[in-house]
Amino acid sequence: MSDTITIEEVQRLITRAPFHQWLGIEVTALSDDGIELTARWREEWVVSPERRYTHGGILAALIDLAADWALVKRTGRGVPTIDMRVDYHAAAMPGDLTVKGRVVRAGSQFATAEAQVYDASGKLLASGRGTYFTAPPKS
Amino acid sequence: MSDTITIEEVQRLITRAPFHQWLGIEVTALSDDGIELTARWREEWVVSPERRYTHGGILAALIDLAADWALVKRTGRGVPTIDMRVDYHAAAMPGDLTVKGRVVRAGSQFATAEAQVYDASGKLLASGRGTYFTAPPKS
Amino acid sequence: MSDTITIEEVQRLITRAPFHQWLGIEVTALSDDGIELTARWREEWVVSPERRYTHGGILAALIDLAADWALVKRTGRGVPTIDMRVDYHAAAMPGDLTVKGRVVRAGSQFATAEAQVYDASGKLLASGRGTYFTAPPKS
Amino acid sequence: MSDTITIEEVQRLITRAPFHQWLGIEVTALSDDGIELTARWREEWVVSPERRYTHGGILAALIDLAADWALVKRTGRGVPTIDMRVDYHAAAMPGDLTVKGRVVRAGSQFATAEAQVYDASGKLLASGRGTYFTAPPKS
Repeated sequence: MSDTITIEEVQRLITRAPFHQWLGIEVTALSDDGIELTARWREEWVVSPERRYTHGGILAALIDLAADWALVKRTGRGVPTIDMRVDYHAAAMPGDLTVKGRVVRAGSQFATAEAQVYDASGKLLASGRGTYFTAPPKS
Repeated sequence: MSDTITIEEVQRLITRAPFHQWLGIEVTALSDDGIELTARWREEWVVSPERRYTHGGILAALIDLAADWALVKRTGRGVPTIDMRVDYHAAAMPGDLTVKGRVVRAGSQFATAEAQVYDASGKLLASGRGTYFTAPPKS
Repeated sequence: MSDTITIEEVQRLITRAPFHQWLGIEVTALSDDGIELTARWREEWVVSPERRYTHGGILAALIDLAADWALVKRTGRGVPTIDMRVDYHAAAMPGDLTVKGRVVRAGSQFATAEAQVYDASGKLLASGRGTYFTAPPKS
Repeated sequence: MSDTITIEEVQRLITRAPFHQWLGIEVTALSDDGIELTARWREEWVVSPERRYTHGGILAALIDLAADWALVKRTGRGVPTIDMRVDYHAAAMPGDLTVKGRVVRAGSQFATAEAQVYDASGKLLASGRGTYFTAPPKS
């Protein structure tokens, strides 16, 4: 139904959210069952003042964001997250991040999607998956 | 070993992190196997400009934070998150949030801890759990 | 709607499943938001022939079973599991197991419930939670 | 260290477990970061006497098994599961099942691996991931 949504429309929908603006989200690729985003590093992400790596909550937010919007060709919008899991693989040092989301299985009531976060060198930092509520909103 | 750490010391350790400052974290209670925190709402948390609720990534960060620091009497510090799960129960409307963390099972290599996020009226908004790496850092 | 279902009726529904018979499930307690079950140890559960502990898949099945049926006062039946997480805390040595399930949050479309597995001495062996599909089946 | 382990040796290690024998596990492929297994359907797996599908606990056990043994070229053995997540995608009707496991990220202390369960027609029934404890056992 929304399979004609363009990357520009998705970017516009995502940018409407103050939180997404704060994360500096840019949509860099969009396909039928996937999306690629970048996030712009900011000092407020840091958890360790000495070692300077990013808090896992930021990586969790990016996993959720990319998994959710991987569904956008089907949903036409961001949909509610029911639950999610994140696995942390390596410390995220200062620098922009890339997140790839992909649909695992889409249904009319709920869907499973997964995502990976990479640094600029392509190193895998975190990965995870979530369950999303895809039923149309009650009017 | 760290079981004599005080609430003031935990507050000081938490506040060292720029991300925790941005979340406005205050430690309001501390026990042998639990912690209670509050987070100060900010406009940047909002995901829906019309409906004004907070992005799930913020709730995930709070779950992770409270579960991690519930272990502090044992660890003496924040420890690396190995993985985590978050379940979303209700939309988080603008306002400060309370997060309660509790140790499920602590071991010398890793530990399981859980947390719940509540709004000011005591409504449960999200809950979850994580696995934490509790082995001492290599010197 | 099903809040008058009795422990005998729940036992009968559970026992209809060949897998539940194989696990030797007995319902030992039932409340508005919880259930307690026991499972009868069998040799086929063993994963390590020397150390004799039970495979994690059996504990996962018991977590799922107790979390699902903790909802039975609301659902009147076992409902589909959407996803689940299990954390393993200690090796399950030969012997019957007790599983306690509890509703975390119930909704008209889906619900979150959690469960813990204990050995005969009351030691916590595993815990976890799942998301369950609680919408009425289409007729 | 164990990267020279053969498919026959892995089959022998897996078959030592009574639970794996009960599941009828056969190793059908093995690579540096993955494994493929089949499981032989049995009547005891059934949860619904009318609709005849398999209990989710069996699918969870298969996910855990394949994710764990996907690590065998690194570990040389089955290793303890720390935690796992399973997502259910479709009802598993009677018939043998195929499970594919793959390493997401391996470390010296713990590792993340994922797996998918398929029916004979190649339909995806369930998928998931786990955290495994890969540190060498204390002697």
